[in-house]
Amino acid sequence: MLTPPSRPPGARALPNKGQQTRAAILDAALALASHMGLEGLSIGALAEQMGMSKSGVFAHFGSREELQISVIREYHRRFEQEVFYPALEVPRGLPRLRALFERWIARVSVEIDSGCIYISGAVEFDDRPGPVRDALAEMVLDWQRALERAIRLAVEEGHLATDTDAQQMLFEIHGLILALHHDARFLRSERALDRVHAGFERVLAAAGASFPAAGVRPPRRSLRATAQP
Amino acid sequence: MLTPPSRPPGARALPNKGQQTRAAILDAALALASHMGLEGLSIGALAEQMGMSKSGVFAHFGSREELQISVIREYHRRFEQEVFYPALEVPRGLPRLRALFERWIARVSVEIDSGCIYISGAVEFDDRPGPVRDALAEMVLDWQRALERAIRLAVEEGHLATDTDAQQMLFEIHGLILALHHDARFLRSERALDRVHAGFERVLAAAGASFPAAGVRPPRRSLRATAQP
Repeated sequence: MLTPPSRPPGARALPNKGQQTRAAILDAALALASHMGLEGLSIGALAEQMGMSKSGVFAHFGSREELQISVIREYHRRFEQEVFYPALEVPRGLPRLRALFERWIARVSVEIDSGCIYISGAVEFDDRPGPVRDALAEMVLDWQRALERAIRLAVEEGHLATDTDAQQMLFEIHGLILALHHDARFLRSERALDRVHAGFERVLAAAGASFPAAGVRPPRRSLRATAQP
Repeated sequence: MLTPPSRPPGARALPNKGQQTRAAILDAALALASHMGLEGLSIGALAEQMGMSKSGVFAHFGSREELQISVIREYHRRFEQEVFYPALEVPRGLPRLRALFERWIARVSVEIDSGCIYISGAVEFDDRPGPVRDALAEMVLDWQRALERAIRLAVEEGHLATDTDAQQMLFEIHGLILALHHDARFLRSERALDRVHAGFERVLAAAGASFPAAGVRPPRRSLRATAQP
């Protein structure tokens, strides 16, 4: 489950050389996977890009599968940092739910040029059972549970109707994000960002959203800015 | 643009041997692509599966790219046959729009075990410009235009509010289908079919759907049955 970090980053011990190398490999692997897909990751290609020997990469990640799983976890960690934790600073209820959705959109928008590992990975691994698929599904479900909880809190706060079906709303919101990713990335549609916002407002309105008033939404131009902690 | 076939299938000349072989290769290629993705298609693997030489396959499809494009067109042809043409038999307006959506769901449900080439292809080719991506986008846009037209007809018939934004509704409906594909195929969720129906009813209700009464929907159990022409 997504939980706030137990200690601030500043309190961490300084990483040693081995940890620094591992982090640098992971960083390159994440960039590679964002473009080529998780299945496009190879230790050979990674070693070449890092100017390392394959055995040097193997010393940090014992297998291609372990590398793929590490990339998924690193992606998840960054997703939490950019989308989840900052939204926890916003008051619970509809404001936090909106913050989560806006940050999710901002994240997907940033990824238009590289690709979301959750979305592309789901298509790559939906018929490939095994530890990589399991790790990916675990991260996706973790994020879905966090969103579902935010919806339930909005109901508890009286910002959404008491008969709101949180899982149904989650399904519909997720559909909007998938459509954004498809239209903006594959069809290169410039209208997708407008559509995803309008869709979200309609989902909220159908659940009797009462705070802030339906139809009022933050200006889209500031998405990138609001994505900063 | 999707249009009814210019002549019934029965009026076609009988295929010759070469056409039969080409059709058999295409059939195997479509099955392979549904499981492995369009990028998983190789002339070598196909030749092995068909018990043919690679040059025998090359005689029918001059290149891997031509094979991929032929597979996309064949997929589109079948999609039209199963989803689009039968819905044209249903009265225009909300009944036809519902028929299109129900058949689309039925198609995606059938594909839970193999995968939709439109959806997986969009993720595979969103950052690979070229003729394969273009062919795929053309087919997807063709289908989207057909749906958008069905929405506009429902407005003209007075079944949806006159201020309905057809492209917005299309975006939201497409999102529901993508969420169904994701949840049913990747997360193996058994609730996805209920969610997609509930979402569709909410989209229609928001557009003031007046025919048939909102909340009334065909029983889901008959999906497969109603998918037959």
